[in-house]
Amino acid sequence: MRESAFGFDVHEQRGLARLGTLRTPHGTVATPAFVAVGTQATVKSVTPEAVAATGAQLLFANTYHLYLRPGAEVVAAHGGLHRFMNWHRPLLTDSGGFQVFSLGASIEHGVGKVANIFPGEATQAPRSNGRGFVKVGEDGVEFRSHIDGSTHVFTPERSIGLQRQLGADIVLAFDECTSPLHDEAYTQASMERTHRWAERSLAEFEASSSLHGYEQALYGIVQGGAFRRLREASAAFIGGLPFHGIAVGGNLGKGHDDMKAVLEWTVPLLPEGKPRHLLGIGDVEGVFAAVERGMDTFDCVMPTRSARAGALLTLSPDAEDVAAKTGVNARHRLNIKNVRFAGDTRPVEVGCDCYTCASYTRAYLRHLFKADEQLGQQLATIHNLRFMSRLLFRIREALAAGALAELRREVLGG
Amino acid sequence: MRESAFGFDVHEQRGLARLGTLRTPHGTVATPAFVAVGTQATVKSVTPEAVAATGAQLLFANTYHLYLRPGAEVVAAHGGLHRFMNWHRPLLTDSGGFQVFSLGASIEHGVGKVANIFPGEATQAPRSNGRGFVKVGEDGVEFRSHIDGSTHVFTPERSIGLQRQLGADIVLAFDECTSPLHDEAYTQASMERTHRWAERSLAEFEASSSLHGYEQALYGIVQGGAFRRLREASAAFIGGLPFHGIAVGGNLGKGHDDMKAVLEWTVPLLPEGKPRHLLGIGDVEGVFAAVERGMDTFDCVMPTRSARAGALLTLSPDAEDVAAKTGVNARHRLNIKNVRFAGDTRPVEVGCDCYTCASYTRAYLRHLFKADEQLGQQLATIHNLRFMSRLLFRIREALAAGALAELRREVLGG
Repeated sequence: MRESAFGFDVHEQRGLARLGTLRTPHGTVATPAFVAVGTQATVKSVTPEAVAATGAQLLFANTYHLYLRPGAEVVAAHGGLHRFMNWHRPLLTDSGGFQVFSLGASIEHGVGKVANIFPGEATQAPRSNGRGFVKVGEDGVEFRSHIDGSTHVFTPERSIGLQRQLGADIVLAFDECTSPLHDEAYTQASMERTHRWAERSLAEFEASSSLHGYEQALYGIVQGGAFRRLREASAAFIGGLPFHGIAVGGNLGKGHDDMKAVLEWTVPLLPEGKPRHLLGIGDVEGVFAAVERGMDTFDCVMPTRSARAGALLTLSPDAEDVAAKTGVNARHRLNIKNVRFAGDTRPVEVGCDCYTCASYTRAYLRHLFKADEQLGQQLATIHNLRFMSRLLFRIREALAAGALAELRREVLGG
Repeated sequence: MRESAFGFDVHEQRGLARLGTLRTPHGTVATPAFVAVGTQATVKSVTPEAVAATGAQLLFANTYHLYLRPGAEVVAAHGGLHRFMNWHRPLLTDSGGFQVFSLGASIEHGVGKVANIFPGEATQAPRSNGRGFVKVGEDGVEFRSHIDGSTHVFTPERSIGLQRQLGADIVLAFDECTSPLHDEAYTQASMERTHRWAERSLAEFEASSSLHGYEQALYGIVQGGAFRRLREASAAFIGGLPFHGIAVGGNLGKGHDDMKAVLEWTVPLLPEGKPRHLLGIGDVEGVFAAVERGMDTFDCVMPTRSARAGALLTLSPDAEDVAAKTGVNARHRLNIKNVRFAGDTRPVEVGCDCYTCASYTRAYLRHLFKADEQLGQQLATIHNLRFMSRLLFRIREALAAGALAELRREVLGG
């Protein structure tokens, strides 16, 4: 591929885990890094300046959504997504494939990516052509808009063209995302098609050029479901193509153990020098598991979505929280709507340096949530994004010191 | 009354209009000033820092709402509203009376304060005891919570006690707010009761002291509906009591002409040296009318509420906007949801120095509103608050230069 402003340097490697710097035309990203999601060209409820103040380095926006509304041509007329949304740091867009399948088909299958994802919204979920929402063929995918039911077609070429218009620093190859409900035969056929789409995405990327005055980088996506044989084949195939980086996508199984296995099959077969992105993971345990298995970046809606529901992330919950909670959803979270916070004049997390914790009490946040005031979601989002930045900062520090396992034990126990 | 950190200086007077400085324990306010509304201890959707950056000097919060949720004692435990909501500039609370009447009774009468107020939300509207929502007696008012239907009683003493707990710099005497549908006899009886409540509010204010380490100031409220004889009587009575300032409240008639008449009857009878607040006015024409008739401050939900509906204030609408619009609601507004802005890369108002206009296009704002993204309401609120600050800045400059009438003609025509 031609020279670009994009690059990746590994400074330290401890086992598979690595400390690195991702270089993009809009600045660098210290890795491992969490990638906040701004689906519709906005991290919901927060200004870009407030997002940046949390330490967020890289945002993820969704081609499917922006294609449907406001249209990639509107974004292009602004000079690309950075200018459109006033975020002048690195950006990543997905190919649109994931939402094509998930928004059409997750409704039908009712299956999320891993057990602890909230139901009812777009997740890394199976697709189906059973009800005519999504029709997959060799050329691409025909789907209906979740907004107005209109029919659209995405192909690898179309996806790359749209991502050229949007102008993120990092763009993704077009892929099909299979479901835990698909058998090995279907998953293999789908993976092989995704490999052909990867080659077409690369060819289209090479044949086109940036529209906005700076280079873009293209990541390939490893698929293969929860099948070892397929993941290994996909890692070898995608890892052998001249992508700038590699994303691991698709069905990662039913929980953290399955996800760990998928990464353990995949990562050793990937090229050493390229950055690796894990799609859709962002809980504390998942982040540690991914970093320890060699992933450099990971995006997830969980921190921002749970903030809007009043679930504030914390590593130092009150004793009564821990006692009251069970299950994976409850870990590291404080439900600010709880009546016990009605008169609590402490910050959300004692010791947190975020704007929310510096300026407001739990009682005030609870009041905002009970009174349905948008500022509550805004302040909670700021805290949760800062929580992720602080967590990843500590992970990078621990990596530099060779103490990641100790940090994991301190944070997660066991 | 005892000495306090509160004071008002008039620097220039042109006719009845005056240029002044209001001094409070939390800083000064250059008058004439628009007062932004933060009903539930938040200017909806915007952080206090963002509000301050628009040039807003003084915020208005509602005792009725904060009494019901989170409770005045919760706010008091924080050291008062300033700390609770992280707004460290001047604050004003109303007495709770207005909402007691309006939230109970406006539902029934369907009458807003002036013709251009949005329907369906709390406005300066008539009360009724017909359905048991609101029962007015000599001692005070019994009402039901709009949140859970529970029964509560406000008296002048209770209102002052709650406002002591909330700790705004400026607090209001407890009053009854009559409706355009009330006849002169009822309006007179109500006004006379309000006068007795004014004396009781003053006595309670004198008998109590600040809970939070700084002095508060108490304004009396002139009532009397749209009846000249009553307004004159009320102005003389309230103006003769030792309040720190005077608010003009209640039914101001059916439009700007009625409001102008009420002010022309009232203001000449008020003491010269005290600041004057007009309750519930904030449209461009109303602001000019109020300033020219001697009012110093005025609060209104319109700029922030219309922002959340996508109505952006501007003095320089596009020609096509002017052509497309009719009626008082349409003046000085741009409906950002209009399809004509879908690809419009200009700022909301060319020449505006607000954060929104400096950083975003009309197309991006339209996208946010169409996609139901909270950031749209936030950015629109910032613009509209800055619009009001810029308007009042120009009014103060014009007053200093003796050119207010010229500015009014430039802005409003005619």
